[in-house]
Amino acid sequence: MSAQVPSQAPLLYERVAHLVETQIATGTLRANDRIPSVRSMSRAAKVSVSTVVQAYVHLENIGLIEARPQSGFYVRPPDPKVVPEPRAKPLRSRRPASIATEMLDICREALTRSDIVPLNGAFTSPALYPNQRLNNLVREVLRDRPHHAGELIMPPGDPELRRQIAKRMGLAGAPTDPEHVVITSGAMDAITLSLRVVCQPGDTVLVESPTYFGLLQAIEYLGLKVVEVPNRPGVGIDADAVRQVARTTRLAAAVLMPNFNNPAGTLTTDDAKRDIVATLTGMEVPIIEDDLYGDLHYGSVRPTSMRAFDESGLVISCGSVSKTIALGYRIGWAVAPQFHTEIARAKFFASVACPTLQQLVLARYYASGGYDRYLRRIRTMLSTNSQHFIDAVARHFPAGTRITRPTGGIVIWIELPPSVDGAELFRTALASRIGIAPGIVFSAKADYRNYIRMSCGLPWSAAIDRAIEKLGKLAKDRSG
Amino acid sequence: MSAQVPSQAPLLYERVAHLVETQIATGTLRANDRIPSVRSMSRAAKVSVSTVVQAYVHLENIGLIEARPQSGFYVRPPDPKVVPEPRAKPLRSRRPASIATEMLDICREALTRSDIVPLNGAFTSPALYPNQRLNNLVREVLRDRPHHAGELIMPPGDPELRRQIAKRMGLAGAPTDPEHVVITSGAMDAITLSLRVVCQPGDTVLVESPTYFGLLQAIEYLGLKVVEVPNRPGVGIDADAVRQVARTTRLAAAVLMPNFNNPAGTLTTDDAKRDIVATLTGMEVPIIEDDLYGDLHYGSVRPTSMRAFDESGLVISCGSVSKTIALGYRIGWAVAPQFHTEIARAKFFASVACPTLQQLVLARYYASGGYDRYLRRIRTMLSTNSQHFIDAVARHFPAGTRITRPTGGIVIWIELPPSVDGAELFRTALASRIGIAPGIVFSAKADYRNYIRMSCGLPWSAAIDRAIEKLGKLAKDRSG
Repeated sequence: MSAQVPSQAPLLYERVAHLVETQIATGTLRANDRIPSVRSMSRAAKVSVSTVVQAYVHLENIGLIEARPQSGFYVRPPDPKVVPEPRAKPLRSRRPASIATEMLDICREALTRSDIVPLNGAFTSPALYPNQRLNNLVREVLRDRPHHAGELIMPPGDPELRRQIAKRMGLAGAPTDPEHVVITSGAMDAITLSLRVVCQPGDTVLVESPTYFGLLQAIEYLGLKVVEVPNRPGVGIDADAVRQVARTTRLAAAVLMPNFNNPAGTLTTDDAKRDIVATLTGMEVPIIEDDLYGDLHYGSVRPTSMRAFDESGLVISCGSVSKTIALGYRIGWAVAPQFHTEIARAKFFASVACPTLQQLVLARYYASGGYDRYLRRIRTMLSTNSQHFIDAVARHFPAGTRITRPTGGIVIWIELPPSVDGAELFRTALASRIGIAPGIVFSAKADYRNYIRMSCGLPWSAAIDRAIEKLGKLAKDRSG
Repeated sequence: MSAQVPSQAPLLYERVAHLVETQIATGTLRANDRIPSVRSMSRAAKVSVSTVVQAYVHLENIGLIEARPQSGFYVRPPDPKVVPEPRAKPLRSRRPASIATEMLDICREALTRSDIVPLNGAFTSPALYPNQRLNNLVREVLRDRPHHAGELIMPPGDPELRRQIAKRMGLAGAPTDPEHVVITSGAMDAITLSLRVVCQPGDTVLVESPTYFGLLQAIEYLGLKVVEVPNRPGVGIDADAVRQVARTTRLAAAVLMPNFNNPAGTLTTDDAKRDIVATLTGMEVPIIEDDLYGDLHYGSVRPTSMRAFDESGLVISCGSVSKTIALGYRIGWAVAPQFHTEIARAKFFASVACPTLQQLVLARYYASGGYDRYLRRIRTMLSTNSQHFIDAVARHFPAGTRITRPTGGIVIWIELPPSVDGAELFRTALASRIGIAPGIVFSAKADYRNYIRMSCGLPWSAAIDRAIEKLGKLAKDRSG
């Protein structure tokens, strides 16, 4: 006899019955699902056929399953008059969650809700991506490479896609050898892998404040500490502060978002970029640039990558297609003259490779042209949009509210009157089915208590105006 | 003036020219590629239109680009009589590589080669996967969810796919609540994320020996130490050794491959599984089970998951579609009653999510049936195959060679006479265009010097017989 079935029930047939009951109770088997045949259950549970028959008759008797002639046993649909039993509560995690973790969990959960006005995520509407073009290219790849599902593209990734990305780096002032490009599962994967290559647990990493909460969390997961320097409106990352910190703190790396910082939307000036690169690379501190939003400039000029000012090869520039073409593809990259071999190695040992299909499709998309034309359209939309959002906030929010004027990207950053708690506004707004992001998650020190971040990626509409009006009312209720 | 262009060249136009030259030298711009228009280059490099014209005329004069009427400037195809200049060597990494790293790099590189008989990877031929079925389902999803590229499925992942995976866990004797399933980018991602959740850097993790080299490397990347227990032919993981180690060493987790261990192919008995689960969970040590090969049993019964013997919820079972359906999809899972919330959170902060398309396609594939029929076919093939491979090794290899008799999986494990160095055989074989894996990479202590691993996943053929004959000759040359 085997112990493949739980060991509490006293009789063999009861054990088999319990196995099926558990699958029904957890929803693994649902109403009208066919349950395993007597023969296959007998094999799987290592019991005789007659034991399985006995179990199934028992389950039939208690009304959980029903036999259908010539077809087998099925899960019986519930009697509508019977109130279903409550489901088992998942076991609690053994790690106590900090308040920040709880807030981040609520933020993450809010991203899964389809019943809210989603001003919480930093992305555009799915309908705005070049879906038809991409889907046609998928069909092309299915035709030309019918075995793609069985093929692995090992890190550093598809050579043609890497060449296309290298080519685009030229437009950011940083001509790139395609051999220095490593394809990753989005920009966060690129940043995490880069950090794993250049840091050891316990090391300290320089970040700006405010910065993307996911970045702070990724740094914490790697066992690293952070030190923050301010990102200032109109200037961006404070180069003097970087110099001061670098003098007094032993830094293992910096992770910076000079082009349209998330959440503040700030563009760091070229002078500040040059200064920061000189300071840090002069001390052999690698810089990991998160250039996720660089292509979404509202003006005519693509902002410069920090790599344009680097002669050491210590600047790693990370990007992705998530904010521009395909959020659901999960493809990004790290451009890393000094570290590409190690990043490719780390990628292999962390998750082997990136999906074959998306790499082939994106290589074709970039190579076939049209990306710049598409970008112009989406940038115009975002630029117009952000103005609408800013105007609406100005109209509806309480006196004392301050708003960024981003020149690129998908978010606006709002400072509320000091009496308004952004986290509380976030919770109340969610109850009114409006998603925003609370300011406190954008700093390791939980600063920005009276700030919120709002996406401006959805096409402007009366419904959004009403949502902002409602947010403004909720904020006014809490101010002064 | 801007410093978006390198700051060494003295004149403005030379800087622009240098930018284009670099792109041509690195292959970013190739023969007949159109180079940026004068206007867009002027914007990107923040120089005047006339400076760009001067730069382009210079590049034309030195023969790098050519003007084509009414069309713009193009990279000039090289004169075939001119020998091209050598390409710049990529900068060397700053971290000294250990011998093990070097050997692993050669192993990884060998996986990218298409000019060898690939007995090195542990997977089947791309043509054997259910490609047509999957491609048809991709077409279905393109039709039904045309905006999938713009849609993000947040961790824990697509609910229907999670339900299907939970359902299959029942066949491994471990009924599962779909809420406990987290979708990941393959099994290695699931294992890495699980380790991040249950361990802190510096902790010690129990593994078996031999075990998959990628696992050892992933553990090292996380700053963890390993302690090894033997995996013995016919028995599998040594439960007594586990008990002894657990008594004397403070373990943070165990990562075990009880079902067709890679590379040894051993199936751990149910008694040993029950014993190990009792020992470790009794001491609150989480077990991460790598059940990548469980579905590829040659016999009629699907081996048991260690979760079948667990009542604590501390056993995490990881799997993927890589070895069965779609290596190139990069989709796997962790089934973790106690830790699913934290693993989903870690997934979000490491790489946000898994690709939308593959999740939707796989959910449909499992739901529509046929997976078991497909599995029967591939299992029969692998079972017959492994016999052919074993026979051929017996025929061609030197006296004193020992071979495993796996009852599932895709690899056979070969002990060579003590005088034969597996790593040397690996290098010589590669020079003869035959890929194998050297034994020393399958243990943290570089044991198994005279072992090799050979894939038996390719359909049997005369060419493979010849390759094994050649390997045998190379081994004979080194033995005695």
